[in-house]
Amino acid sequence: MTGADTENGKTLGVAMIGHAFMGAVHSQAWRNVHRFFDVPVTPRMVALGGRDERRTKEAADRFGWASFETDWRKLVERDDVDLVDICTPGDTHCEIAVAALAAGKHVLCEKPLANTVAEAEQMAEAAARADARGVRSMVAFNYRRVPALALARRFVAEGRLGELRHVRAAYLQDWLSDAEAPMTWRLRKEQAGSGALGDIGAHIVDATQFVTGEPLVGVSALTNTFVPKRRSAGGGEEDVTVDDCALFTGRFASGAVASFEATRYALGRKNAMRLEINGSRGSISFDFESMNELWFYDGDEPAERAGFRRILATEDAHPYVSAWWPPGHLLGYEHTFTHEVADLLTAIGGGERPSPSFADGLRVQRVLSAVENSAANGSRWEAVDS
Amino acid sequence: MTGADTENGKTLGVAMIGHAFMGAVHSQAWRNVHRFFDVPVTPRMVALGGRDERRTKEAADRFGWASFETDWRKLVERDDVDLVDICTPGDTHCEIAVAALAAGKHVLCEKPLANTVAEAEQMAEAAARADARGVRSMVAFNYRRVPALALARRFVAEGRLGELRHVRAAYLQDWLSDAEAPMTWRLRKEQAGSGALGDIGAHIVDATQFVTGEPLVGVSALTNTFVPKRRSAGGGEEDVTVDDCALFTGRFASGAVASFEATRYALGRKNAMRLEINGSRGSISFDFESMNELWFYDGDEPAERAGFRRILATEDAHPYVSAWWPPGHLLGYEHTFTHEVADLLTAIGGGERPSPSFADGLRVQRVLSAVENSAANGSRWEAVDS
Amino acid sequence: MTGADTENGKTLGVAMIGHAFMGAVHSQAWRNVHRFFDVPVTPRMVALGGRDERRTKEAADRFGWASFETDWRKLVERDDVDLVDICTPGDTHCEIAVAALAAGKHVLCEKPLANTVAEAEQMAEAAARADARGVRSMVAFNYRRVPALALARRFVAEGRLGELRHVRAAYLQDWLSDAEAPMTWRLRKEQAGSGALGDIGAHIVDATQFVTGEPLVGVSALTNTFVPKRRSAGGGEEDVTVDDCALFTGRFASGAVASFEATRYALGRKNAMRLEINGSRGSISFDFESMNELWFYDGDEPAERAGFRRILATEDAHPYVSAWWPPGHLLGYEHTFTHEVADLLTAIGGGERPSPSFADGLRVQRVLSAVENSAANGSRWEAVDS
Amino acid sequence: MTGADTENGKTLGVAMIGHAFMGAVHSQAWRNVHRFFDVPVTPRMVALGGRDERRTKEAADRFGWASFETDWRKLVERDDVDLVDICTPGDTHCEIAVAALAAGKHVLCEKPLANTVAEAEQMAEAAARADARGVRSMVAFNYRRVPALALARRFVAEGRLGELRHVRAAYLQDWLSDAEAPMTWRLRKEQAGSGALGDIGAHIVDATQFVTGEPLVGVSALTNTFVPKRRSAGGGEEDVTVDDCALFTGRFASGAVASFEATRYALGRKNAMRLEINGSRGSISFDFESMNELWFYDGDEPAERAGFRRILATEDAHPYVSAWWPPGHLLGYEHTFTHEVADLLTAIGGGERPSPSFADGLRVQRVLSAVENSAANGSRWEAVDS
Repeated sequence: MTGADTENGKTLGVAMIGHAFMGAVHSQAWRNVHRFFDVPVTPRMVALGGRDERRTKEAADRFGWASFETDWRKLVERDDVDLVDICTPGDTHCEIAVAALAAGKHVLCEKPLANTVAEAEQMAEAAARADARGVRSMVAFNYRRVPALALARRFVAEGRLGELRHVRAAYLQDWLSDAEAPMTWRLRKEQAGSGALGDIGAHIVDATQFVTGEPLVGVSALTNTFVPKRRSAGGGEEDVTVDDCALFTGRFASGAVASFEATRYALGRKNAMRLEINGSRGSISFDFESMNELWFYDGDEPAERAGFRRILATEDAHPYVSAWWPPGHLLGYEHTFTHEVADLLTAIGGGERPSPSFADGLRVQRVLSAVENSAANGSRWEAVDS
Repeated sequence: MTGADTENGKTLGVAMIGHAFMGAVHSQAWRNVHRFFDVPVTPRMVALGGRDERRTKEAADRFGWASFETDWRKLVERDDVDLVDICTPGDTHCEIAVAALAAGKHVLCEKPLANTVAEAEQMAEAAARADARGVRSMVAFNYRRVPALALARRFVAEGRLGELRHVRAAYLQDWLSDAEAPMTWRLRKEQAGSGALGDIGAHIVDATQFVTGEPLVGVSALTNTFVPKRRSAGGGEEDVTVDDCALFTGRFASGAVASFEATRYALGRKNAMRLEINGSRGSISFDFESMNELWFYDGDEPAERAGFRRILATEDAHPYVSAWWPPGHLLGYEHTFTHEVADLLTAIGGGERPSPSFADGLRVQRVLSAVENSAANGSRWEAVDS
Repeated sequence: MTGADTENGKTLGVAMIGHAFMGAVHSQAWRNVHRFFDVPVTPRMVALGGRDERRTKEAADRFGWASFETDWRKLVERDDVDLVDICTPGDTHCEIAVAALAAGKHVLCEKPLANTVAEAEQMAEAAARADARGVRSMVAFNYRRVPALALARRFVAEGRLGELRHVRAAYLQDWLSDAEAPMTWRLRKEQAGSGALGDIGAHIVDATQFVTGEPLVGVSALTNTFVPKRRSAGGGEEDVTVDDCALFTGRFASGAVASFEATRYALGRKNAMRLEINGSRGSISFDFESMNELWFYDGDEPAERAGFRRILATEDAHPYVSAWWPPGHLLGYEHTFTHEVADLLTAIGGGERPSPSFADGLRVQRVLSAVENSAANGSRWEAVDS
Repeated sequence: MTGADTENGKTLGVAMIGHAFMGAVHSQAWRNVHRFFDVPVTPRMVALGGRDERRTKEAADRFGWASFETDWRKLVERDDVDLVDICTPGDTHCEIAVAALAAGKHVLCEKPLANTVAEAEQMAEAAARADARGVRSMVAFNYRRVPALALARRFVAEGRLGELRHVRAAYLQDWLSDAEAPMTWRLRKEQAGSGALGDIGAHIVDATQFVTGEPLVGVSALTNTFVPKRRSAGGGEEDVTVDDCALFTGRFASGAVASFEATRYALGRKNAMRLEINGSRGSISFDFESMNELWFYDGDEPAERAGFRRILATEDAHPYVSAWWPPGHLLGYEHTFTHEVADLLTAIGGGERPSPSFADGLRVQRVLSAVENSAANGSRWEAVDS
């Protein structure tokens, strides 16, 4: 007997541009999402975009894309493509996204949305215009889809933390800790936009705004470049033109105060995306290096029995988890992308706006811009444009 | 331009029997293994076996199997099937595996290998005969493929723990903790063989033998059934005929002493498969609820600086990890099955014997049998047959 | 103006015998107890007993004892002595305690109560006779006075764990891990009675009986001596005549099953006295290496919010803590002895029986004896005399 | 035989002023220090100073002071007093300390040294003048004497962390989290000087300067008062005139960047004085709620075996520990004061300058002042005076 693949329903042609780290993990999400989630439209992996023909073809084969293009403009125009997934460096996001939306394609765009506020504004406007025609867009802040962080958001929304007082966020990596590590594009301002700030600082800015449900309204910042020159691939040295770390304080709309730190020099911390929030009724704490755990302090408990509890966010009752395995059978990094794509397909299929929107991405960009301005002006307080 | 799927090399037709929890996770492994690992043969998911036509067809569609069969014998005989993956309850393993091996199909069989030593012996003999003809077999003790545990094995093999003195293993779950939870097939001796002992005790017996590189030579055991009757689906009550927990001590061949505990009544412990080993030079500690971490104590360090270190087993230098994501980007439960299938395909492609073999599975079965005998005889010491 | 020491109330003359590790820590308790606890009688540190004159005098000076004796019989007879605190090795406990009780002195005796059941029985009888005359006795199982463990006992007594199913206890040290470490009296059966079993195994037997509120009714055991000979102080080698480790399973009166392990070879574990109990409604977990923490799982919480919570047992609401510092200001090892002495003085002053009694000490001794019998008889099940 | 107290050597008459929380813990240190440490001079607890006669007398009795005075000036002049220990609120430190030093008494002064930079300068000058006459002074930053933090300092000094890049410090408490908690003197600027900043922020400023061995050279700060009015004891409401929290970034002399946070509103955090330092070769991490642990990452280890290790700082090889108990037998909060007093007596006896000096206390005060200035000026960068 023959079993057809699950394509008896509606399908969606997906094209992805970029096939490095983000391309690999997005491919895994597109390939598997409908095996676990009851999405209203099933993705077809129709084409991969890349610049180098041989490498793009190899990546298409490996990741399971049915065809490939070396010119992203062709890909954006193809009739069999309904959605464009942008996994390229930040300096190319704006042009591709605007073109794709204009061509009537839904867009999923990696973070940070853009390298500048101006580009992000242009993208948010394009997204708003497209949205009026039913064309959807989403920025890929995947950490919103960590079950433990989605649960944290739920707790805040339910009032379990009460009035929020403190937000404490950090994203600590150490891959630049070795001063002998060579130069990369991520350390060039013209390509990367910024350093730790835009790459990982953007994640914690979005995550805190997501979990608190509030915007940051002002910041004071300090950035630093510990290793100002690095060995070039071609020999010789090249200037590092981005920040190695960014530290900032901030205030949320309701008055909560916050501290942020993003760095690639926290030796021993590999991917410690951390968040703690203290409210008047409860607190939560999270570290991505133990991503299946949410720590929750319930201030309503009597002192005798109160304590931070380690919630292993692997129960059916937790966000996204019922699609997967039994309790205690952990999920990993890539699952956050599968959740992201599941939510996006659900929104598209249901005619709803996916979240986070390009407007949310713009809001993050404005915070990053305020951080840079403050750091350039003696840490003076900078209001975040709204 | 057209990109073909990565089938320019050799492929292997895979059929899987059973489509419950284990079927879902095995499917995920077969679907994705060649996207991450450079396996010498690429799996084709040709057929799924199940008893109920409608449910089997639905599962084939969902999991991505190209066809299905409701009679496993037909499936085992199909020419397009090169490997049979057995994900059914333990009482069916022997018959299917022996038939598949006789038909010249490679076999991957879920654990425990069988419900009795006699069946396991028959299977091990069939495997040995098949092996002489180049037909391979493997028992699916997936925990061997947790990177942190594979790293623990490496440390022991390198002598970093020195002479082994203590092994402390536990597998703690709590899904039967509620006495009102209904009866399931897992609590009937005729289907499940045993309770916590065979289901999860088997895992820690295999894991300790794997990491230490030594067989258990004797045990003393205690089993218990906390809730002797449970509510039947059809109304009324049914006797629970298996153990709810099994506690045993043991000795390894070299003289290390061990304690084991398997239970489904450890309220709050969801999938705490734990292992600690203390040697004369070092110690390791592991808990599956934090499966990306191996804790290592290096006894060669001076007292001033010695301490259990948390190795986040997500570095390229760690087993299996270089196929996946950057450091600190965690893997999950399902990855252990992808690793298992990668190793199996590599062995088949390279003409080598995969591990753990059916003989290894038989060895585990003999330990379980000794445990049952000891528990039935006042905890008296039982030698394990070798 | 002159301030007298706080001796306007009733006082109690204390004599302590033995001035090694236990003597130092008991002295600290006697010296400070009334500075923190409102005890009805204030201790006077009147005399220290020891065998060597010079060393005893030095210890008396250092620890703050007003006089010393080199013959414990004299000390037991002194009129200014109301209580005798026995901190000597186990082979001397019986003779001293019986004599002190006969002389009408209250007795605090270090654990294990004795080296044999026969001695312990003799002591328990002497204690019962003395008690009829208002002379009190107590065995120094100090771990009962760890605030976190006293809190665990409270939770069990309040029914927060429901019906108890699993007890998991271990006492892990590593000071004998080095096979080159020299011989000590603790490794000679005639002085120490047993090895890890009596020294640290006794603690976990008492602690589990205390926290559960139930007696152990049967055990099955395995002991081992990893290093059978050690270097003598005088040169040459000497046989180790005690166990290096003891592993046993057991059953409590109500049917809970238990595992125990005591060892001095768990490399990297310094004083890991651990206890976990799983019940039908809740669980607790404790490790002395984090002695200010009790982990509690409340099974009444919904799955979404359930998790082991880390209760930092430093609140006024926790046992013993209100006498000390503000929340989060940790207590240490020695405080358990101050609590012990506070409870003892309170009982004496109030005319009540202190706990644990010599009868409790005897009950532990009978468990240790059953463990030894089982280990000597192929791990066969041994009922514990009651 | 009579055993004299250990006063055959030199003694030092100690007077303490203030008998609240700090008085209790200092008394415990003075009472016991010579029982554990071989100090060259033995303290005599000669007099306690307080304002209320009855309460001072009671405290003297309870804590073990031989006499008391209600006028601190008399106490400072007494011939039997060699050292004055100041445990009063910050607004009185300057006057008492200057008078005591002028009277030729050694001084131990609680932190923060003073409520203003001007007072701290006056005190540091008085200390310098006294020092020329052999009269010693010390400010009581007790956290320097946590064994784990003293070990951290040792690691930095030995170069085990390499070049320092990041300092991350926080002192989190929650005792004001409840908006209904009543007014206290600690929330009045005129008495307390500042709020969380001076009370607990001072500790982390000193601790980071101590462990790094470097001064902070600039800061940018944000302070907040979450609950601006609180219920008075007499009824009605009173304005809170100090900060509830202070967040600041900073730079150390060598270029390391830092973040600091001090708050009494971190619900669930009881005394979480935390410090993490990342260098080019290694990292350390500490949390006072687990005060016996130092976490150390050795960047020289190969990636396969690198990880933060939990050093249980209870070994003889660790600072201060050999005076106490065997490995794994934890120390508590009060021990840091005993260590402080031991170091002070050792310095006095040896004719050396104790540390931290009043000049160190002044340096902390200048940082606090810069923090307040920055917070009052839109978080602008403030250089710290040197």
